[in-house]
Amino acid sequence: MRIAVIGAGAIGCLYGGRLARAGHDVHFLMRRDLQAVRKHGLIVKSCDGDFHLENVQAYGDPTEIGPVDLILCALKATAIDAAESLIRPCIGPRTRLLTMMNGFNVEPHFARWFPAERLLAGLAFVCCNRGEPGVVHHLDYGRVMFGHYLDDVEQARQIAQLFADAGFETQVAASLLEARWIKLMWNIPFSTLTVSAGGVTTREILADEGLTELARTLIVETGRVANADGCRIEVQAMVDKMMANTATMGAYQPSMLIDYRGRHPIEVEAILGEPLRRADALGVPVPTMRMQYHLVRFLDRLNRGEVRREDTTDGR
Amino acid sequence: MRIAVIGAGAIGCLYGGRLARAGHDVHFLMRRDLQAVRKHGLIVKSCDGDFHLENVQAYGDPTEIGPVDLILCALKATAIDAAESLIRPCIGPRTRLLTMMNGFNVEPHFARWFPAERLLAGLAFVCCNRGEPGVVHHLDYGRVMFGHYLDDVEQARQIAQLFADAGFETQVAASLLEARWIKLMWNIPFSTLTVSAGGVTTREILADEGLTELARTLIVETGRVANADGCRIEVQAMVDKMMANTATMGAYQPSMLIDYRGRHPIEVEAILGEPLRRADALGVPVPTMRMQYHLVRFLDRLNRGEVRREDTTDGR
Repeated sequence: MRIAVIGAGAIGCLYGGRLARAGHDVHFLMRRDLQAVRKHGLIVKSCDGDFHLENVQAYGDPTEIGPVDLILCALKATAIDAAESLIRPCIGPRTRLLTMMNGFNVEPHFARWFPAERLLAGLAFVCCNRGEPGVVHHLDYGRVMFGHYLDDVEQARQIAQLFADAGFETQVAASLLEARWIKLMWNIPFSTLTVSAGGVTTREILADEGLTELARTLIVETGRVANADGCRIEVQAMVDKMMANTATMGAYQPSMLIDYRGRHPIEVEAILGEPLRRADALGVPVPTMRMQYHLVRFLDRLNRGEVRREDTTDGR
Repeated sequence: MRIAVIGAGAIGCLYGGRLARAGHDVHFLMRRDLQAVRKHGLIVKSCDGDFHLENVQAYGDPTEIGPVDLILCALKATAIDAAESLIRPCIGPRTRLLTMMNGFNVEPHFARWFPAERLLAGLAFVCCNRGEPGVVHHLDYGRVMFGHYLDDVEQARQIAQLFADAGFETQVAASLLEARWIKLMWNIPFSTLTVSAGGVTTREILADEGLTELARTLIVETGRVANADGCRIEVQAMVDKMMANTATMGAYQPSMLIDYRGRHPIEVEAILGEPLRRADALGVPVPTMRMQYHLVRFLDRLNRGEVRREDTTDGR
């Protein structure tokens, strides 16, 4: 299958790299790593076994790729406004588009200009990050849950098979919306608390009784919005599951924390802003999520120098 | 009047220093500044006019002071457990005790071992901080609201007169409880947001729409607890007043921020923990205050090295 990976960061390189190794004709749109990959290929240091792809088809411009059977869009949610122009040159009459991006309201954005019946999403549960140019570290997990924008389960199954054949654990979601909300029931508490609690990993969060209570509260609030949005999630059971899963992760840095530590824009709108606006539209009270949104949004701006710290007067 | 200042930080030195200048027989219990003050006296650089007290009666041990007419206790709320042993040597049969401390449930603590009928509180609205040893900076304001633990307004008036004669603007509270809650309606939003929003002043808070909304929410929640606790506060009017007052303060650093930046323990239990426990006891929902408590408490521990930042695994 002819595949274009748009946004070849850690996720794009890991999944695209394994699809290439499985024999597919994969083309990578790259920015930071382009020269290194052209020169030395792509190195994936993986918990499933390292591999090295030589002669990677890497490009700096999507027009050089042209139409493909499948677009794997792994842009950061913060780059969503650039997605259309990056993807359009790769669209043919039968192209399917698979988003592998964090956050809420990702697919509706694409559905404004891409046929909904060929739009799918892969929700990755994976620990990976970029190393030096041309190197990706895959540290743990790798499971992807696939869903179709209109819940065409057969299409989701076909894409899942593609990834299963490349060696990944896969699942198929009967409802993409529910799958998105379930992923948010992890990202909203844990990704965002790592930032507002001062740049710490999931281990420090779970070691603190107060932060653990906050995490639980954020999961419950998110679950309530999800169910008001049409899902049928057993919220308390999901709280227990999320807490138990997180306890097995060790000192885990979500991508939001990695971006924050690197002073890059964090996915605050995709992970907090969009769900909060959905909660408000549905009339579901989410005071903890709201506070988290305002704090994390501000901390992101402060972190990137958009807000300057002042100090002139002192006192009580 | 023979006066003992217990806890001669910025507040103790400013108010005690002005009482000494007004002719009272003031004795200061000091720690950090003791040697400097004994050698060079006390220098107050004040927006009301600088002054220099020579031959200050400064001590390192309260038994050297002995019984006084009035004890001014200006310890940090974090030192409240040490208060009894520091104050006891200064208590005579008619001694009055005036606390000048932040937070909630301060006086009930003293009332466990000091006669309630001679227990008063002064709530200072002042910008001051310590400079090099022996120097205090008084930057702005200075008004003190006095209340009596059993709301004996006549006694509060007498103490207020003492401070008025020393040149301070004073007020007398008909209800100490209400005065405490009103002060918390400023401290809970502004002191604690300066910490959770990444160590910024009130100016950056007010310049951010989201943080301003959080501040308003925290004032409303605090006011609801206050009214459930027996106060009669017009909450919305107080929100507007607090926001307007804060807008005049410029880039103001509350003492909590100064302590946080100095990596000292912050008054998180006095300013957030005690009010939150009161809210819980009264059954008033305060989700934003609760979140703020858990975050700020954790950030304080992280800031002082009680929690260590980890990083081993990375990813999404």
